[in-house]
Amino acid sequence: MSKSTLTVGLIGYQFMGKAHSNAYRQVNRFFDLPYQVRMKTICGRTEPGVKNAAEVFGWEGYETDWRKVVADPEIDVIDVSTPGSSHCEIACAAAEAGKIVFCEKPIGNTLDEAERMRAAVQKSGKPSVVFHNYRHIPAVALARQMLADGRLGRVYHFRAVYLQDWIADPQFPLVWRLQRESAGSGSLGDIGSHIIDLARHLVGEFDSVCGHMETFIKERPMVGEVDDKLGAKASSEKGQVTVDDAAMLLARFKSGAVGTFEASRFAVGRKNHNRFEINAEGGSLVFNLERMNELQFYDNSDPSPEQGFRLIQTTQSDHPYAGHYWPVGHIIGYEHTFVNLVASAIEAIAAGREPFPNIEDGYQNQRVLDAVERSSASRSWINL
Amino acid sequence: MSKSTLTVGLIGYQFMGKAHSNAYRQVNRFFDLPYQVRMKTICGRTEPGVKNAAEVFGWEGYETDWRKVVADPEIDVIDVSTPGSSHCEIACAAAEAGKIVFCEKPIGNTLDEAERMRAAVQKSGKPSVVFHNYRHIPAVALARQMLADGRLGRVYHFRAVYLQDWIADPQFPLVWRLQRESAGSGSLGDIGSHIIDLARHLVGEFDSVCGHMETFIKERPMVGEVDDKLGAKASSEKGQVTVDDAAMLLARFKSGAVGTFEASRFAVGRKNHNRFEINAEGGSLVFNLERMNELQFYDNSDPSPEQGFRLIQTTQSDHPYAGHYWPVGHIIGYEHTFVNLVASAIEAIAAGREPFPNIEDGYQNQRVLDAVERSSASRSWINL
Amino acid sequence: MSKSTLTVGLIGYQFMGKAHSNAYRQVNRFFDLPYQVRMKTICGRTEPGVKNAAEVFGWEGYETDWRKVVADPEIDVIDVSTPGSSHCEIACAAAEAGKIVFCEKPIGNTLDEAERMRAAVQKSGKPSVVFHNYRHIPAVALARQMLADGRLGRVYHFRAVYLQDWIADPQFPLVWRLQRESAGSGSLGDIGSHIIDLARHLVGEFDSVCGHMETFIKERPMVGEVDDKLGAKASSEKGQVTVDDAAMLLARFKSGAVGTFEASRFAVGRKNHNRFEINAEGGSLVFNLERMNELQFYDNSDPSPEQGFRLIQTTQSDHPYAGHYWPVGHIIGYEHTFVNLVASAIEAIAAGREPFPNIEDGYQNQRVLDAVERSSASRSWINL
Amino acid sequence: MSKSTLTVGLIGYQFMGKAHSNAYRQVNRFFDLPYQVRMKTICGRTEPGVKNAAEVFGWEGYETDWRKVVADPEIDVIDVSTPGSSHCEIACAAAEAGKIVFCEKPIGNTLDEAERMRAAVQKSGKPSVVFHNYRHIPAVALARQMLADGRLGRVYHFRAVYLQDWIADPQFPLVWRLQRESAGSGSLGDIGSHIIDLARHLVGEFDSVCGHMETFIKERPMVGEVDDKLGAKASSEKGQVTVDDAAMLLARFKSGAVGTFEASRFAVGRKNHNRFEINAEGGSLVFNLERMNELQFYDNSDPSPEQGFRLIQTTQSDHPYAGHYWPVGHIIGYEHTFVNLVASAIEAIAAGREPFPNIEDGYQNQRVLDAVERSSASRSWINL
Repeated sequence: MSKSTLTVGLIGYQFMGKAHSNAYRQVNRFFDLPYQVRMKTICGRTEPGVKNAAEVFGWEGYETDWRKVVADPEIDVIDVSTPGSSHCEIACAAAEAGKIVFCEKPIGNTLDEAERMRAAVQKSGKPSVVFHNYRHIPAVALARQMLADGRLGRVYHFRAVYLQDWIADPQFPLVWRLQRESAGSGSLGDIGSHIIDLARHLVGEFDSVCGHMETFIKERPMVGEVDDKLGAKASSEKGQVTVDDAAMLLARFKSGAVGTFEASRFAVGRKNHNRFEINAEGGSLVFNLERMNELQFYDNSDPSPEQGFRLIQTTQSDHPYAGHYWPVGHIIGYEHTFVNLVASAIEAIAAGREPFPNIEDGYQNQRVLDAVERSSASRSWINL
Repeated sequence: MSKSTLTVGLIGYQFMGKAHSNAYRQVNRFFDLPYQVRMKTICGRTEPGVKNAAEVFGWEGYETDWRKVVADPEIDVIDVSTPGSSHCEIACAAAEAGKIVFCEKPIGNTLDEAERMRAAVQKSGKPSVVFHNYRHIPAVALARQMLADGRLGRVYHFRAVYLQDWIADPQFPLVWRLQRESAGSGSLGDIGSHIIDLARHLVGEFDSVCGHMETFIKERPMVGEVDDKLGAKASSEKGQVTVDDAAMLLARFKSGAVGTFEASRFAVGRKNHNRFEINAEGGSLVFNLERMNELQFYDNSDPSPEQGFRLIQTTQSDHPYAGHYWPVGHIIGYEHTFVNLVASAIEAIAAGREPFPNIEDGYQNQRVLDAVERSSASRSWINL
Repeated sequence: MSKSTLTVGLIGYQFMGKAHSNAYRQVNRFFDLPYQVRMKTICGRTEPGVKNAAEVFGWEGYETDWRKVVADPEIDVIDVSTPGSSHCEIACAAAEAGKIVFCEKPIGNTLDEAERMRAAVQKSGKPSVVFHNYRHIPAVALARQMLADGRLGRVYHFRAVYLQDWIADPQFPLVWRLQRESAGSGSLGDIGSHIIDLARHLVGEFDSVCGHMETFIKERPMVGEVDDKLGAKASSEKGQVTVDDAAMLLARFKSGAVGTFEASRFAVGRKNHNRFEINAEGGSLVFNLERMNELQFYDNSDPSPEQGFRLIQTTQSDHPYAGHYWPVGHIIGYEHTFVNLVASAIEAIAAGREPFPNIEDGYQNQRVLDAVERSSASRSWINL
Repeated sequence: MSKSTLTVGLIGYQFMGKAHSNAYRQVNRFFDLPYQVRMKTICGRTEPGVKNAAEVFGWEGYETDWRKVVADPEIDVIDVSTPGSSHCEIACAAAEAGKIVFCEKPIGNTLDEAERMRAAVQKSGKPSVVFHNYRHIPAVALARQMLADGRLGRVYHFRAVYLQDWIADPQFPLVWRLQRESAGSGSLGDIGSHIIDLARHLVGEFDSVCGHMETFIKERPMVGEVDDKLGAKASSEKGQVTVDDAAMLLARFKSGAVGTFEASRFAVGRKNHNRFEINAEGGSLVFNLERMNELQFYDNSDPSPEQGFRLIQTTQSDHPYAGHYWPVGHIIGYEHTFVNLVASAIEAIAAGREPFPNIEDGYQNQRVLDAVERSSASRSWINL
C-alpha cells in the first residue's frame, strides 16, 4: 500500500458493481480521508459489458479474468461483488495474495464456504469488510450510539421485516437469484441477512432460532437471455425455483431479548421495506430503509403527557455521516450507504482498527442463516 | 334550575341535533358532574321528523314551535342548533326569557346579528356556550395548556386549513348551506370559523386580516326535496350559488404572530381535514382532526441529535378528558368533542365560571369573519 | 324473548362491563334494529361497586349473585364479561338455562373449558356471540369484504402485532391479568387472541404454529388492594408472574399463506398497537387499531407509475357501519366497535342467522392458543 | 462547443458550488448523454478556498477573477452560483461573451436586474438554465406529467409552504442571506421563489397576489468571520436584519385556481419542509421535499369505497429519472435533483430545445417576487 493511495480492484459490475464504483469515486469528494482511493481495475466475464462499465463507472482499466486482478501487485483491495457462488474462491485467493478483502453479503452460499473465507482472511492478517452497508446509514448509526451508550437500557424486543415484491408475479423468470447453486438461498440470504446483521449490530448475538422458509411459486419460466434481475426476459421453458420466496424466524438473543424476522419478495406493494423496531426499557426505536433519513425514537423518560414517538430527521451535522453532505433537511440516498461504509472502513484501516462489519460478522451472520435453514427443515428450534 | 338537574330544550334535529343529543345523553355516563342533564324537549318544524328524532335521540318530548320551548319554565338551557338564519331570533328570545343559551357556530349570519345576541346574553346575566367543540378535543386542550403555560414561548406562525370536498362535484345540488340567506356564508362561516376560533383560543386576538373568497361553481341544480346535506337530491332547475366555495386569509395577531388560513369544500380527497400547525420559539405543534387522538409536538429543548416531532397519543389518563373514557390507546371519536364541551360547560356553570367558548367568543369570531368578507371585497387588509 | 325487546343481563362491571353497557345503551340510537335492547340487570360481587355501575351505566337493577341473573326468566341474553376463570361456569349455566350467551374473549382459560362451553351452547340450540369486537371495525369489515370477494386473490402473508406497554415498568403490580389461575395466560390470551381471531376471519384456518412465550419480569410487587388494572396499587410483598409478558408465533394457514404474530405488553411507547398487514396476489392491506378509521390498500392493478398504498378513511356512508354515525371524515372511536358488534349480532339473531364471531370462533381461537402454549413448551411446530 | 464535450466554468464554490460540481461530475455516470461534461474551471474570490474546492470537487483548475473564466474561449457554459448581488453582472457578461448561462435562483436581487439578464440572454440567442432544481425531482416531474396530461382536470387549489428553522435562534448571526444588499430578500427570494416556481410549473401563470413579509428578529449579532451560513460565528456587535424572516401570500392564477404560499426560516422543527398540495377536479397531489422520493395522489375516479391518498414511491424505472439510478425502493437524495436538471438541460441543448426552467422562468419568477414585495408594502392586492 503506497503512502497515500488505496488501490482497488472490483470483481463484478452489475447492480453492486455500480454501487461500489460510485462509492469509491465519491468517497474522497465528501470525506477528508487518510487515503485517496484509486479505481484501478474492474473485472467481469463479458468483455463488452465490463469495458463499458469501466468507462461509465470511472475505472482506469478492466479485466475479464479475476485471477489477474488478484495477482496485480499494485492493488491493495479486492472487492468481491459477484454472485454468491464465486465469493469463496475469489475471496480466499485474494486473502492468500495478501489483499484486503471487501466482500458482498452473504459472504458465502454455505456455512462451510464462510468458514473457509474467515480462515483465509484471519491467516492473511489483513483487515476485511463485508457490505452490510445499512449499518452505516446515519439513522442506524444513531440508533447504535443510543443503544451502545446504554441510553435505552435492557432491550426486550427486536422485530424486523425486509419486504420486496419483485418476484410476486408468477411469470417473473427464473433468474440466478432464484437458483440455489448460484444464490445459496432466496430471500433469506439476499435480504434476510441484512436484518440479521442489523440485529447483531444493535442487539447482540443470537442464542437460538426457529425458522420457516416458504416457496410460493415452485416453477417459473426460464430466463431468455443472460441479464441482471432488472432486465431478465422470460422464455417459454419452465424451471424449478430452488430457493425460498420468503423466510421468517423467531429468535432469542443471548441478552434475553426476543426477536421476529421476516424476509419476503412476495409482499406486494413493498419495494424495499427494510424496517426494524426495538422496544427497550428506556424507549423504542423504529427505522425504515424507504425513509432512511429518519429515525423514530420514543423516550420513556419524557414527561408523561408529552411522550410520543419522535420523528428525527437524521440530516443534522451532529448526526453520524450527515455533516459530510448537505445542510440539514437535505436528504441523502441509497448510494450514500456505500460511501459511508467505505469512508468508515478507510478510516479504520488507516488507524489500524478493524473495519465493521468485517468477515467475522459475515461468518456469524452465515451461522444464523445456516441455523434457520436447519430449523426450517427440522421444524424445531436450533441453538447457536 | 332545580338543585341537581339541568333541563335542556334543543331547537334543531338534523346533524347537529343528533350530535348534541348524544352529548346530553352520554355526558353523565362518563363524567361525574354536579348536574344531571334532563333531555326534556327537542324542537323542529316538521312533525314526523322531530317526533322520530325525539324517540331515537332519547328526548322526553318534542315541539314544532320553538317559542313554546323557550317559554317552558322547567327548561334551563335553550340549545340553538338550527341553520344560521334563525339563530339570532331564537337565541335573543331565549336570553330574554332568562335561559342559558347554547348556540351553534357561527352564532349569526351577520355581525349585526352577533352583536344583538351578545347584548341579549349580557343583559340576561346568564352563562352561554358556543359550539366551537374542537377546543375540547384532548389534543387541542393539551396544546392550549402547553401554550398557556408559556412552555413554547413566543409564537411566530399559526397556519390552518379546514378542507372538505363534499361539494366538489358541480352536480351537487344547491342545499341551504350554499345560499347566503340561510347560511350567511359558505366555507368561511361553516368551517373557516372553526379554525379562526382555534387561532383565537391558542394564539390570541387578531390584529388585521387580508382575505379572499372564491366561488368556483357559480350555478348548481336546485334541491329536489327538502333534506339535510347528505340526503339532498338534484332537480333539473338551476340556481345561483351565493356563498363562497373557498375562503383564504392572511392574518396578523396582536401578539406579533402571523397566520394563514384556508377553508374549502373543493379539496378533493380531503374529508374533514382540519389541520393546524403552530411554530413557536420553544417548539411546534401540529394537529389534524382526522387523527384527533394525536398531537405532534417538537420540543426545541430536546438534545440536538434527538430532536424531532413527537406523535403524542392523547389517550392517557393524564391528558385532558381522556381519563373519563377508555384505557390508553383506545381512541375516542368526533361525538366526544361535544360530550367534553358539555361536561366542561356544566362544571363551569355549576362553579359560577363562564363556560368556554361562549357568546363573546362567538361575537369575536364573527368580527373576524366580517373583516374577511370586507377585505375580500376591498382587495386590501382590514384592521380589527 | 318478547316480540320487540332483547333483555340483557351483564355479569361483570369493570372495563368490559363499561364498554358493553355503552354498546347496549347506544345501539338503538344509531341503528334501526328489529329489537330494542332492555338493560335489565348488571351483576358483580361487590355491592357498592355494582350498584354504582348500574346507575352510571344505565341498568334497571343490579345483582351480586350471577346465578340469580341466569335464573331470571325475563332475560334473553347473558353477557359474560368477568375475568376468564369464571367464564366457563357462568356461560355453561346460562346456556343450560336456555339463554343466548354473549361472552368476552378468550372464552376460557383452557381448551377444556372452551370445549365444554361450546358443547353447552350447541346443546342449547341458541345463537352466541364472542367479543372479538375488532371484526366489526369499518376498516376491518371493508378488508374482509375485499378478501371475501376475491378482490385480492391468493394471500401470501399475514403479519400482525398487538403491542402495549402497560406492564413494562417492573414495579407495576401483580394484577389478576398476570396470574395464570385468573387470566389463563398473559399477552397471548388477552391481546394475542385478538390478532389470531383477525387472522382466522381474514385469511382462514390455521394449519400449524410454532410459538414462543417469554416472561421478562418474573417477580412483581403484590397488589395492595383489589382493583382493576388501572387502579392497582403496589404493596411491599412480592409474587410470581405466572403468565407470559410476550408471545410470538409463526404460522402456516390451510390456504398455504404464512403468518407471523406477536403480542406484547413490553413494547415501550406502543399503547394499543394492533396492526396487521396482508400481502396478496392482487394487493396488500394494512390496519392499525390506533388509527382505526383508516385502512391502507395497495391495488396491484393500478397503472404501474401510479401504484401506491392508499390511505382510505373508512368513514364514508358506503363503508361498513360508518353511515350509521356521522358524515364522512368524522371519526368513531373504540367504543363503537362494541356498538357495531351488538348491532350486527341483533340483526343476525332476528334473522335467524348465527352472529359472528360466535362460540365456535371462540373455541377455534382457543385451539390455536393451546397449540401455541404446547409449541412453546416443546420448542417445535404443532399441527392443528 | 467541441463535438462531444460541454465545458463548464463555475463561479462560486460554497453550498451551491458543491452541489453543482457534484452534478457535473456525476451526470455522465448515470445518464447516457450527447455531451460529456468537462469540468474546467471553478472560480472564487478567496484563493485557498477555491483551490481546495477545485481539488475536492474535481475541477481541472481554478480562478479568482470571474472575468477570466468568462473570457476563456474553451468554456461553453458559465454557471453563476454566487450570492444574488453579483448574478446580474456575471450573467450579462457571460451572455455577451456568447456563453450558455446557467444561473442560481432567484436570478437577480431586483426585477430590474432580472430584466437585464433576460435581455442579455435573449440577445445572445443561447439557451439558458435557472436552478429551480426541484422541477426535476421524479415525484415533481410525475406530478407535472399528470397535470399536463389533463389527468386531473381543472385545478382549484395550490397550497405550498417552504419551512426551515435555521435562523429561529435570535442569536444566530447576521450572515449575508439576512442582508438586503447581498441577498435581495430573505425567505421570500431564497425559498419562497422555489414554491413560486413550482406553482408556475404545475398550475401556470399568476394573475394577482397579496403578500405579507415579516421580520420577527430585527437585530442580530454581526458575523465574526466571513463564512457560509453553516460556519458563521457571532460577534459582540449588532446589526440590522434588512430582509424578511417570513413571507406569505395569497394568489389567483390566470386559470382561475387560487393559491396560498408561505416561506419561513422560523418554523421551529421544520428543516427543509417544502410541501405542496394541489386539489383538482380529478384528484389531488401532495409532495414534501423531506420525503422527496414519494408523491401522494388521490384519484377521484377510484371506486368510492376504495378512494384514498396513495403513497407512490417514485423510484420505479417508469418514473421520471428514477430508472437511471438504482432498483425500485432504493431512494435518491437532494444532490440528484441537480444531476437530473443538468441531464435534462444537456439533452435539451443537444436537441436544440430550450432547457427548463430557463432565464425566462427566472424572470417571470422575479416578477412575482417583486409583486409580493410591493403588495406587502401597499397592504393590498397587486395584479401581474
